[in-house]
Amino acid sequence: MTNNSRSLRLDNGTVPIPSGDATTRKTDRIEAFSDAVLAIAITLPIVELHAPEVGPNGDLAAELAKLWPSYLSYALSFAVIGIYWGRSHFLGKIVEKTDHLYNLLNLLFLASVTVLPLPTRVFVNHIQGDGNSKVAGVIYASSLLLPTLVWTIKWFYAAKYHLLDVRLTDEYLQWGKKAYVATTAGLALSVAVTLVSWRLGVALAGLITLAYLLPPKTPQYKPGQEPKDEMEEAEDRPREQAT
Amino acid sequence: MTNNSRSLRLDNGTVPIPSGDATTRKTDRIEAFSDAVLAIAITLPIVELHAPEVGPNGDLAAELAKLWPSYLSYALSFAVIGIYWGRSHFLGKIVEKTDHLYNLLNLLFLASVTVLPLPTRVFVNHIQGDGNSKVAGVIYASSLLLPTLVWTIKWFYAAKYHLLDVRLTDEYLQWGKKAYVATTAGLALSVAVTLVSWRLGVALAGLITLAYLLPPKTPQYKPGQEPKDEMEEAEDRPREQAT
Amino acid sequence: MTNNSRSLRLDNGTVPIPSGDATTRKTDRIEAFSDAVLAIAITLPIVELHAPEVGPNGDLAAELAKLWPSYLSYALSFAVIGIYWGRSHFLGKIVEKTDHLYNLLNLLFLASVTVLPLPTRVFVNHIQGDGNSKVAGVIYASSLLLPTLVWTIKWFYAAKYHLLDVRLTDEYLQWGKKAYVATTAGLALSVAVTLVSWRLGVALAGLITLAYLLPPKTPQYKPGQEPKDEMEEAEDRPREQAT
Amino acid sequence: MTNNSRSLRLDNGTVPIPSGDATTRKTDRIEAFSDAVLAIAITLPIVELHAPEVGPNGDLAAELAKLWPSYLSYALSFAVIGIYWGRSHFLGKIVEKTDHLYNLLNLLFLASVTVLPLPTRVFVNHIQGDGNSKVAGVIYASSLLLPTLVWTIKWFYAAKYHLLDVRLTDEYLQWGKKAYVATTAGLALSVAVTLVSWRLGVALAGLITLAYLLPPKTPQYKPGQEPKDEMEEAEDRPREQAT
Repeated sequence: MTNNSRSLRLDNGTVPIPSGDATTRKTDRIEAFSDAVLAIAITLPIVELHAPEVGPNGDLAAELAKLWPSYLSYALSFAVIGIYWGRSHFLGKIVEKTDHLYNLLNLLFLASVTVLPLPTRVFVNHIQGDGNSKVAGVIYASSLLLPTLVWTIKWFYAAKYHLLDVRLTDEYLQWGKKAYVATTAGLALSVAVTLVSWRLGVALAGLITLAYLLPPKTPQYKPGQEPKDEMEEAEDRPREQAT
Repeated sequence: MTNNSRSLRLDNGTVPIPSGDATTRKTDRIEAFSDAVLAIAITLPIVELHAPEVGPNGDLAAELAKLWPSYLSYALSFAVIGIYWGRSHFLGKIVEKTDHLYNLLNLLFLASVTVLPLPTRVFVNHIQGDGNSKVAGVIYASSLLLPTLVWTIKWFYAAKYHLLDVRLTDEYLQWGKKAYVATTAGLALSVAVTLVSWRLGVALAGLITLAYLLPPKTPQYKPGQEPKDEMEEAEDRPREQAT
Repeated sequence: MTNNSRSLRLDNGTVPIPSGDATTRKTDRIEAFSDAVLAIAITLPIVELHAPEVGPNGDLAAELAKLWPSYLSYALSFAVIGIYWGRSHFLGKIVEKTDHLYNLLNLLFLASVTVLPLPTRVFVNHIQGDGNSKVAGVIYASSLLLPTLVWTIKWFYAAKYHLLDVRLTDEYLQWGKKAYVATTAGLALSVAVTLVSWRLGVALAGLITLAYLLPPKTPQYKPGQEPKDEMEEAEDRPREQAT
Repeated sequence: MTNNSRSLRLDNGTVPIPSGDATTRKTDRIEAFSDAVLAIAITLPIVELHAPEVGPNGDLAAELAKLWPSYLSYALSFAVIGIYWGRSHFLGKIVEKTDHLYNLLNLLFLASVTVLPLPTRVFVNHIQGDGNSKVAGVIYASSLLLPTLVWTIKWFYAAKYHLLDVRLTDEYLQWGKKAYVATTAGLALSVAVTLVSWRLGVALAGLITLAYLLPPKTPQYKPGQEPKDEMEEAEDRPREQAT
């Protein structure tokens, strides 16, 4: 008998996947769309980088050096959006399907990421410390909080409505909830700290964000339901199994 | 005997799919292209958001607050284009193939969506009410009508030329026709209303557009031809069936 | 015995596909990259469309009307790039693989398409007829010639190095060569005509380009090698065949 | 017995693939994201190309000719980014999987490529030789070095952590290491040469970069493990094998 992995799983005694609403689809297209939006968001700030017009007797090096806020903004935006892409890449490994409301939450997440270059530039403009640094710091820390807040809501929604790989252990889903709530709380705290010391607050928000450069926790699967190798993913085409 | 799902369906007694013209293809690539265009259209308005240059003694918060029309335009464009992506994501679930004219209709649809940030900004510029608000309102309501009009034409074309999943019931196709004609008529009416009261007209157009935040109607399939689970889609690779 | 479609074809007596160089790959990724570039090229000119700043007593309708060259340029660019995407979508149906030089030719094709918004705008700026209309017309007609010239070279290369579906008849390949050479010659002629009458030359170039709105010629396959249905494409995963 | 190609390979006596960390995934999505970023980077400089506003008695041809630095910058950026896409397209053929750190290295690579239009324009602004040409030349040569340096690190990482196709011979992996180190050294040398003669240094960097227009070395596989035909790639879905 030949069969696909989904029904094999049922043979293994797991509960059937609850039938979703009309909009349930595999994640191929939401991943592709998100990747495209993030790719554009990460690349677009390059249009702000203009070569200075310097005459033959001007000092090109000095003129280019003056543009450091542009470079720093670009680098910061690229790093943060890149980190979010990395997270999103990992999440795609364990999210098995999507539905209408998850699509909307994902759009909200993308909106909060694509807008990042603006508060980044605002903060860089006042990074050297002046009368506007506190306002700029609050805005920047808040802009780092927002995508993580939406991300956390996405995780809770995906866990509640069984959009994640059904083979994941409850402990792993709980770990995700705790970890993302903690990160969100940490970033909310950093916004509060910027009200007292913008340097400390932004540093805290930056450290929490950079922590995502570390690899995420290895997914844990229910006994007997581990994917056969580390490359088998939820979105895999069903593989044929022989008996 | 091993076979693919298409011929299995024929074994089930459905009519054969009429052979299309030379350009008939699966929808993988038209979906990917549409997603890319919508991803760019949704992200591109971010280049209009520039950080204000504020001196150390300037009021950054006040300068940023002055940019509210930019933020509002960005948010509105993102929301409306995001809603259209959501629709398009759902349609991809039940469209099985594409042909040359459907490609052209889809291009027209994409053109009408990508242009949205301009009328959105025009309307926001006059949203507080001035001598130009009526003109701006008519333009904005019309710009919301246009993509839905093209969308409706796409649906009729797809239904007539059997581009939709052949397993869908006639009732479902009819529902689609009625629903999209009603939406188009509602948006056309809202354009007319803006001529009398721009506030009312735009509010009506906005409400009709926002209605698409609700999940679409669950596809209904002919008896015995329901997809095996909610994730099986028209574009699935044929699955192997053993006997 | 189970086998994949490629070797089945060999069983059917077709010649083996000559082993390509190191860079031969399926066309998935070159199609995706091309689609992304064309999606960006078609959408990017929207950044040139700025909402006019009109005071409460200004005439918004008149200010918007003044922007007609922007709208016309956008519409023309969108139409022509859209037409090229349509062509490219069709070509993807019958191109089976790519290699390094084909990648480079494709990059040249993409470069010639992405640059189109500039000559389009230059021509529109002088479309009403002035001392610069002839220069603008020559530039625009040339910019329509260039992508078609590269396209024709791509076709000859693909046909010569067996990158096209090996099941296509020689007559079909010959038809392609003749059709594309004729189109290229027609566009070259239209450039020459612009030197005499820019209106006539551009009109001719436009008509030849618009002819691609018609569906392309149905691919013709060698007897006994027709794809089983109109949706089977070169890039399909091998389907299992039972004996 | 039916099996997938991975375990077939194990049957052939190759060592099992070491289990990666939590983030190991197939390369579909990292390829798609990279393609999108490169597609945007290659297309975006078009927004710098503005049609000149020329009155009816102005000299359009002369005004357009004055924009040659814009055209040259666009062409150079397109060529170099296109070359990197070609490399990346080839690498995708032999990279079998990705992990978290490889994702980060790839982001660094993408950042170094997307930034290229800026130093390209800076160099073109001073290509005719003036007091700033040396500075501009050093910057441009360095900007050509950077992506290749990151690329080389990526290759060493992928080779060390078994992300490349396990069927490749050690000799081939060694060849890659030598070739990429040599290229990186050559580009580093060209940066040094620009300090003496900017013309010579940039010419050397340009020649080394253009050398990638040549097809890459054909991958060499361990005996008995050659892919069945030149189109079988690492990312292929497992093919069914019957006995």
